Amino acid sequence: MKKTGTNLNRISEFQELISREVGSFCRALKARPARLYEPLSYVLSLEGKRVRPVLTLMACDLFDADVSRALQPALGLELFHNFSLIHDDIMDNAPLRRSKPTVHEKWSTAVALLSGDAMLVKAYQLMSSCANLQVLELFSEMALAVCEGQQLDMDFEKLKTVSIAEYLQMIELKTATLIAACLKTGALIAGARAEDAKRIFEFGKNIGIAFQLQDDILDTYGEEEKFGKQKGGDIIANKKTFLLLKALELSGLNAYKKEELELWMNATAANAREKVEAVTGIFDSLNIRDLAVAEMLKFYNKGIGYLNEIPASEEKMNNLKVLVGGLIKREK
Amino acid sequence: MKKTGTNLNRISEFQELISREVGSFCRALKARPARLYEPLSYVLSLEGKRVRPVLTLMACDLFDADVSRALQPALGLELFHNFSLIHDDIMDNAPLRRSKPTVHEKWSTAVALLSGDAMLVKAYQLMSSCANLQVLELFSEMALAVCEGQQLDMDFEKLKTVSIAEYLQMIELKTATLIAACLKTGALIAGARAEDAKRIFEFGKNIGIAFQLQDDILDTYGEEEKFGKQKGGDIIANKKTFLLLKALELSGLNAYKKEELELWMNATAANAREKVEAVTGIFDSLNIRDLAVAEMLKFYNKGIGYLNEIPASEEKMNNLKVLVGGLIKREK
Repeated sequence: MKKTGTNLNRISEFQELISREVGSFCRALKARPARLYEPLSYVLSLEGKRVRPVLTLMACDLFDADVSRALQPALGLELFHNFSLIHDDIMDNAPLRRSKPTVHEKWSTAVALLSGDAMLVKAYQLMSSCANLQVLELFSEMALAVCEGQQLDMDFEKLKTVSIAEYLQMIELKTATLIAACLKTGALIAGARAEDAKRIFEFGKNIGIAFQLQDDILDTYGEEEKFGKQKGGDIIANKKTFLLLKALELSGLNAYKKEELELWMNATAANAREKVEAVTGIFDSLNIRDLAVAEMLKFYNKGIGYLNEIPASEEKMNNLKVLVGGLIKREK
Repeated sequence: MKKTGTNLNRISEFQELISREVGSFCRALKARPARLYEPLSYVLSLEGKRVRPVLTLMACDLFDADVSRALQPALGLELFHNFSLIHDDIMDNAPLRRSKPTVHEKWSTAVALLSGDAMLVKAYQLMSSCANLQVLELFSEMALAVCEGQQLDMDFEKLKTVSIAEYLQMIELKTATLIAACLKTGALIAGARAEDAKRIFEFGKNIGIAFQLQDDILDTYGEEEKFGKQKGGDIIANKKTFLLLKALELSGLNAYKKEELELWMNATAANAREKVEAVTGIFDSLNIRDLAVAEMLKFYNKGIGYLNEIPASEEKMNNLKVLVGGLIKREK
């Protein structure tokens, strides 16, 4: 990978295009009913990097089409992402999103529910604007996959454990399919060949899984000040991440270690810092971090393999590699 | 209007077509995640008359097209209606729908929220199946109108009073636009001329408003055993219906009557039956029932006027008139 300076310029050029599109969208929103439309501008103003719509533009660019044709659908995908955050935050009782109050906290659950619905409809309007039925079909399939993933995630909370395979399937549905669909949408709009559209979808799916695994790793092993979240939040909440599930799997071979891990999981009154330290200690003794990084890299490399099969200019390929490389290496 | 027997046969033929389509849809649903897809079959099994999708088929038939072409979009509109009921029931904390537990009561709020989202996506899939961008555009506009109407309805609950004009605008958005869109969808699929598609939309919009006004009237003046709901439920809940708003408007001319009405509205601990009787008495003294019936008939006749402008066979026009006449005259 060369010309990183140029690649970064291209990425910020696309980010700028999306920001302007988000701005126009927000200015064009109806003023009334205020409690239906204000939450849309509020949520859209919180998002920073616009990774998903930028991926759509980059995929369109990869197949040498004018990216302006992909702008409206790219915005539609950004709206879908934000819609799913609004509704997920209701279901997860989350008080904050990007350090700001969530919509249901700032207004009410009813407002968050209904403005989320309106946002999904607005997303469909933007997806329909390119008059490409394949794009619409892909969007609906992706949306159902995201709903399925969120339901599985909630189902998993009630189970004692789930297999690594089930966990990977869940994050594929909940997180990776959207990344994959963003890329494929750009390819479809650019009129890419079916096999290349499939390759870029597989690239996105594998990168998306790697991205979520990296998220799991950073929650426990990230640098707190850079990551901007409470370190070990997943451990405190007993969240069934790759790390915990792998530890539960491996500690099955060691009755004492398994008992210790389960003791901490059941210790609802435990001191948070103490619990994070103890569980991280168990993870370390089982070499969980390295195993998770290896798993993450396995998906990352598999994704890059699909990308490399696409016949496209090296420079444009590198734009995509720089962007997804940044996502995986991110510490905040 | 003649040949009512034949008309009713046509209506039940269309109802039967929709029922079969609903059945196939439910059988084709994925089994997992169960908590995502089971609520869809549950809710679809509660609805009886399938008024909205039948209207789509009738509009398609009115313009002499094969109704089988409208079946998938008609089902999409039925799904949209049910999606909005699931989400409205969460917002209104409603425990029952058609005498059965609502989805959020039977499962949970999270399940109702997410399965509602999935139902909206499934509705879009069905709407897209006819590959008609005008149909999709109409659907999204209608969906936003329904969201706006629901938000206004919730906003109104917090206001001391609202004008009759504001109330009519709200029910147009929340209830009438869907009826209008169901009819126009059938017309668009049949390839009706733009002016006729507009006429059938206006027919539906006015009939939809009349339908909601009739609902308001029946809640207070319907025969309890036929209507199947607690009589006076709106009065007990101080719901801002046409009846209450008209009474508040007219009692402005009579300080004593206005005070009496407001006293009952503030009487949170009042005996329900006593409150219903007293408020109905005030309504009667202000001639509210006749005024409401007159308003309802004004919209009904305006709607029929639009229908009569459409050049179509008398028999097919009568099918529609028999169906909407039944909706307005319904006592249950």
